[in-house]
Amino acid sequence: MKPLGPIPSGFDAVDGELAVGGVRASELVARAGGTPLFVYSKAMIEQRVAKLRSAMPDDLSIHYAVKANPYIPLLESIKGLVDGFDIASGGELELVRKAGIDLATVSFAGPGKRDWELEAAIAAGVTLNLESEGEAARALAIAGNLGKRPRLAIRVNPDFELRGSGMKMGGGAKPFGIDTERVPALARKIVASGAEWRGLHIFAGSQALSSEAIIEAQGNTLDLAARLAREIGAPLPHLNMGGGFGIPYFAGDEPLDIGAVGKALSNRFENIPQEIAKTQFCIELGRYLVGEAGVYLACIVDRKESHGELYLVTDGGLHHQLAASGNFGTVVRRNYPVAIATQFTRSPSVEASVVGCLCTPLDRLADKAMLPDAQVGDLVAIFCAGAYGATASPAAFLGQGPALELLV
Amino acid sequence: MKPLGPIPSGFDAVDGELAVGGVRASELVARAGGTPLFVYSKAMIEQRVAKLRSAMPDDLSIHYAVKANPYIPLLESIKGLVDGFDIASGGELELVRKAGIDLATVSFAGPGKRDWELEAAIAAGVTLNLESEGEAARALAIAGNLGKRPRLAIRVNPDFELRGSGMKMGGGAKPFGIDTERVPALARKIVASGAEWRGLHIFAGSQALSSEAIIEAQGNTLDLAARLAREIGAPLPHLNMGGGFGIPYFAGDEPLDIGAVGKALSNRFENIPQEIAKTQFCIELGRYLVGEAGVYLACIVDRKESHGELYLVTDGGLHHQLAASGNFGTVVRRNYPVAIATQFTRSPSVEASVVGCLCTPLDRLADKAMLPDAQVGDLVAIFCAGAYGATASPAAFLGQGPALELLV
Repeated sequence: MKPLGPIPSGFDAVDGELAVGGVRASELVARAGGTPLFVYSKAMIEQRVAKLRSAMPDDLSIHYAVKANPYIPLLESIKGLVDGFDIASGGELELVRKAGIDLATVSFAGPGKRDWELEAAIAAGVTLNLESEGEAARALAIAGNLGKRPRLAIRVNPDFELRGSGMKMGGGAKPFGIDTERVPALARKIVASGAEWRGLHIFAGSQALSSEAIIEAQGNTLDLAARLAREIGAPLPHLNMGGGFGIPYFAGDEPLDIGAVGKALSNRFENIPQEIAKTQFCIELGRYLVGEAGVYLACIVDRKESHGELYLVTDGGLHHQLAASGNFGTVVRRNYPVAIATQFTRSPSVEASVVGCLCTPLDRLADKAMLPDAQVGDLVAIFCAGAYGATASPAAFLGQGPALELLV
Repeated sequence: MKPLGPIPSGFDAVDGELAVGGVRASELVARAGGTPLFVYSKAMIEQRVAKLRSAMPDDLSIHYAVKANPYIPLLESIKGLVDGFDIASGGELELVRKAGIDLATVSFAGPGKRDWELEAAIAAGVTLNLESEGEAARALAIAGNLGKRPRLAIRVNPDFELRGSGMKMGGGAKPFGIDTERVPALARKIVASGAEWRGLHIFAGSQALSSEAIIEAQGNTLDLAARLAREIGAPLPHLNMGGGFGIPYFAGDEPLDIGAVGKALSNRFENIPQEIAKTQFCIELGRYLVGEAGVYLACIVDRKESHGELYLVTDGGLHHQLAASGNFGTVVRRNYPVAIATQFTRSPSVEASVVGCLCTPLDRLADKAMLPDAQVGDLVAIFCAGAYGATASPAAFLGQGPALELLV
């Protein structure tokens, strides 16, 4: 038997079934027209943002990282809750445009921006977080051709990392951002060019659950920003402090102590170095805002035994839930939180593995988990499916195609 | 410095550039309309099938596993070369239908077949490789409703594995197929039902480079088939012996000795047990037929240094090349064969990492490789991209979208 991850709070049960926003899983499936289905909860996202706002300093802006979940109804819903958006491609620029988001609140980071993406972003008034001197030169040339004043920030490759993070984005050689010692020269060049100087983007890592680690990284980020502002010799209008706030996926994971993070940041802000005293600070969060607010529902199409082990074969799989299958950036596969949605209040009674419909042994959604004794037709729920699910999975694999999505 | 995998034979150089079918990489990109681009070589696939045919016994059928690469022009091209096709979903059924493939030569394996998929396959005369007793019951019921005689085979969960294979599909508890000891009872039931009894599908693993391991698994497969035919008490019209033939991806990998496999299989066929003497045998190959015949071309959009390391940032990435990035079913990341396509004949002179345009440290296509000193605008080639590339990668990640594809 292998443990399951913790089911996020905010879900409840109606008539013994998992419910989102008071609506039973089977009713959600009926509304959407079938399975597999991602369901995202507006209320849970609102609650998450409200909790975050109350923990964080008042003057800290909160940005949403579109890459975590670019489902347009979700973007439309979140746009009233956050202060800005971060995009990672020209494709995401089109998505935020379609969602009616104010493009002046959008910044664009990513190491391989093509000329057409720079052009579209500059024309739209999006802030570019420049990843290299070469990209800066291209952006200035394109802005010149457009006759448009570009809004330019520099993404810094920090000389520290976010300890314990799932993905380290700083500390040592990296394809992201510009090494700290080269930032002042480029910043002065941007200021001198007449571009709108927007400041810095410093992102040290993602998916950290330790408040101590986040507090340390935020402290280092502010120190570095102050030092760079001094060396640049011009104020930083804006500082994107990155994100890194993780969510619990696996047994034993504890939620991030957001209160501790907010308190430490408030203390920092009260003693802010003079060089960045007038800077507008933001944190950029994706997974933390929406990850726990989503659940993936798949239907059991076969129930079979092999050599004494029970398999629940679903119509979902790694083509929508690559990370949950353990095949995306993880070395050791561990179970996400999983439940039988249509038997949500029943006690676990059998050990079973939940697999997808793909003809590959990689397609395992729960390995040797204790679950209620589910049958063909029951719905399986994979939690923590609100971020890096639908778009971070190979939807076309084995001719399957994308899942349905629903925001309730 | 980390080694690169071996570049498959069959590619050549024209005017110093990588060429496919005599056409330079930059010309292929111009024809397709841009990058990132998958290019598949018809000639290399033809040569591969011809080589395989000459090594294998004459009476062995060769099937293509559509999941490896379902690009429709490739399916259209390969249909004159092979004797049948294996599909893994209703979506792939639609693809082979569109490619004008004779559906009587198609078989359908996969652990989570939905009712609509069973119905579509039965109506089309596709052979179902049944994965469980439950699926058999559903198929018979659906065929009854359709008034159609279904073509039914049983997928066996073999009690042995393919040693050294990248993916083990047999040996112990598995979600695939039916445990051997339960096969005879189900087969007799199928025969008694009046369905068209098609025989067995035994698939022990994939991506093996050792001829000894393949020979052993094929021997075990034939022994098991003979034993099951005897226990069933009815002849096996057909035996799908699976595949498992691997291709070299990494430094040190040696190509499979296909001559040795063919010779051993011919010997086996000369001494075939009487129970399966009239059986039609096939092997089902995907990666082996098309994997080395494909190359992925991406354009360098930035060239940057960080802490003394050189990064070539391309407009491609793991959204098209998940396996090459080391994030799909591998524990230790190793480099695929990679080259600078526009400097194909130049000697390596610098150590560089090739990364994609995605804003994640997972997006690395070559790690610390020795390459010619490439510049912005040069094309990077990732080889072994003909199988499990485009459709086995999260194309929508970070708003990127699918790559272009071209068969030449």
